[in-house]
Amino acid sequence: MDPKKILAKFRKQGARIETASRVHLKSKKDFSLWYTPGVATAASHMAAHKDAARSMSIKRNSIAIVSDGSAVLGLGNIGPYGALPVMEGKALIFKEMAKIDGWPIVLDTEDPEEIIKIVKAIAPGFGGINLEDIASPKCFDIEKRLVEELSIPVMHDDQHGTAIVVLAGLINAAKVVKKNFTKLRVVISGAGAAGTAIARLLLESGIRDIILLDRQGIIVEGRSGLEGHKKDLAKRTNPRLLEGNLAEAMGNADVFIGVSGKGLLTGDHIRTMAPGAIVFALANPEPEIMPEDAKKAGAIVIATGRSDFPNQINNALVYPGIFRGALDRGVTKITTETKLRAAKALASLIPRPTAANIIPDLLDKRVVKAIAKSVR
Amino acid sequence: MDPKKILAKFRKQGARIETASRVHLKSKKDFSLWYTPGVATAASHMAAHKDAARSMSIKRNSIAIVSDGSAVLGLGNIGPYGALPVMEGKALIFKEMAKIDGWPIVLDTEDPEEIIKIVKAIAPGFGGINLEDIASPKCFDIEKRLVEELSIPVMHDDQHGTAIVVLAGLINAAKVVKKNFTKLRVVISGAGAAGTAIARLLLESGIRDIILLDRQGIIVEGRSGLEGHKKDLAKRTNPRLLEGNLAEAMGNADVFIGVSGKGLLTGDHIRTMAPGAIVFALANPEPEIMPEDAKKAGAIVIATGRSDFPNQINNALVYPGIFRGALDRGVTKITTETKLRAAKALASLIPRPTAANIIPDLLDKRVVKAIAKSVR
Repeated sequence: MDPKKILAKFRKQGARIETASRVHLKSKKDFSLWYTPGVATAASHMAAHKDAARSMSIKRNSIAIVSDGSAVLGLGNIGPYGALPVMEGKALIFKEMAKIDGWPIVLDTEDPEEIIKIVKAIAPGFGGINLEDIASPKCFDIEKRLVEELSIPVMHDDQHGTAIVVLAGLINAAKVVKKNFTKLRVVISGAGAAGTAIARLLLESGIRDIILLDRQGIIVEGRSGLEGHKKDLAKRTNPRLLEGNLAEAMGNADVFIGVSGKGLLTGDHIRTMAPGAIVFALANPEPEIMPEDAKKAGAIVIATGRSDFPNQINNALVYPGIFRGALDRGVTKITTETKLRAAKALASLIPRPTAANIIPDLLDKRVVKAIAKSVR
Repeated sequence: MDPKKILAKFRKQGARIETASRVHLKSKKDFSLWYTPGVATAASHMAAHKDAARSMSIKRNSIAIVSDGSAVLGLGNIGPYGALPVMEGKALIFKEMAKIDGWPIVLDTEDPEEIIKIVKAIAPGFGGINLEDIASPKCFDIEKRLVEELSIPVMHDDQHGTAIVVLAGLINAAKVVKKNFTKLRVVISGAGAAGTAIARLLLESGIRDIILLDRQGIIVEGRSGLEGHKKDLAKRTNPRLLEGNLAEAMGNADVFIGVSGKGLLTGDHIRTMAPGAIVFALANPEPEIMPEDAKKAGAIVIATGRSDFPNQINNALVYPGIFRGALDRGVTKITTETKLRAAKALASLIPRPTAANIIPDLLDKRVVKAIAKSVR
């Protein structure tokens, strides 16, 4: 759609979410019960019994959608005002798909320690924290610290939402090409939040041969300048100790997963892959290769992040169900086991996958329930 | 109502507010427009034009209701979990009375510098900040700094909401007893957030003879240990340099305004007042004197903060209209002139006040409109 038309629609709409009363104030009695003096009884009770907030307040069903705008979609560091409409869109999806009260909290600071402090400070009023569009590598430490220090579920969706939906898609794609899942040779282009989390979850799911690339090429132990999460990944991936760039990585690969940038993958790359090639070109909105070009080069299963092609690998399939399950069951940590179960649950909604149908549709009503059930 | 019954009602209700979708996601087209890729256009635009957030996002109609729980109702420092149901009640009132999207943000920190930092950091997503139930004296500096440093309206409601509604009530009470408003002799019991703001606004409205008391007695220049806002108030109030306690203050007073504690005022105090005594006993839920006792002692106009007596002086009459007006008119500071105008607008809704009717009812639909109009 024409950008001017999109802006006109957003302007006319004003906001996509709002608050709504769940009780009404029609009499002095209503005020006396739901405001003063009645609320004083609830306040004293909740001060003495913090857990009561989970049954008697917005905390029971609310998620803070927190971003500093440092890595928004494919747009980069565009700050809190740029992040606001995206977080509002996520709040809309939370409500529409999982009846969750998500509220956007966009932060006018990029300092990791401040972000941690702020999220910890606002946590009492929320039932969970969805971190979003926070740049790598700081996103790893921010999430780790908050998971450790808070007693409500915290999830950086760019990492785990994406990793779960990719794993689900890959489980079904392997069935389509009739390959042994754990023996797949996987190339991941992009070692930011998404690429890192995908690599980690695929390792947990039993895949051994994973080659991860960043802007400097293949990540391999001993490469100069490797630090932090990349140093760790170098130890755990690339068992054949490949060096070089994408061309070197792609030879005989079974799977390409792109969470990097427009046009990075060519038909020539795909032609060097093993037969039955699986190509997930997830850069958004412009994928690493257009589906028709991937097909021409011989790829069998092709997925993107877009709504206008088959097989949309989008984390909106995952986070509503993850938080629905966590809120309903009082789960305070989203464990690796939950992520693996969620991916399997999502994949199993398609019992007989085909090349054009490896992942449920965003409008499939079964998705949230199936994923919520997997949260323990 | 029995506390157990109140808790049962809150438990059954679960939450009093929630989010609601203003658009629905029923097709892939809806996702493409309101989420990705459409939202990327809005994000880029809002990153480049921050003001666009005021017309194209939740910022246009949302208020953060921020408290650290350090001075909740009459309950004292009961922390963020105790504050949560009160802030949720305010969010409910915002929606019910003024169609504003208020969202509670309760903070797990009491440090003034941290509170300032946090509110500044979360400000981009909100159209205004309602500070609430933050203890005196830190509330003064927190509000001052945020008003100066943010470009959205910030108001500490315990101060200004209360002061505006008291001034409105007093304008009409003076008419009832046929006294010259600016010549009223006023005693204010309580020099916290509310008492201080009431004193300041009455000074601005032209009243000169104001005696303010804190727990140590009458505030007078030279009293040992006076600091900060009390030192400033000592200079501007008490022109007859009275010393002593409530008994010394009350002789020949025209008006008593209590924002202190249960039972502090006696019939004997009232009997020493000038004829036509006005008694606002606003401590909540237990007033400084019960209305029937004040009446027996000769008070003519009597008001409380409670719904079960006539003349309810409650800031819920004020803050919805103040923020409605500020949001609608893009007003970024709530000035003294606005506060004075709002009080007059509220008072003028009762053209012929009587002893039992000096202030509009909480259910009076004209209130929000009248106050909103006064915000410039």
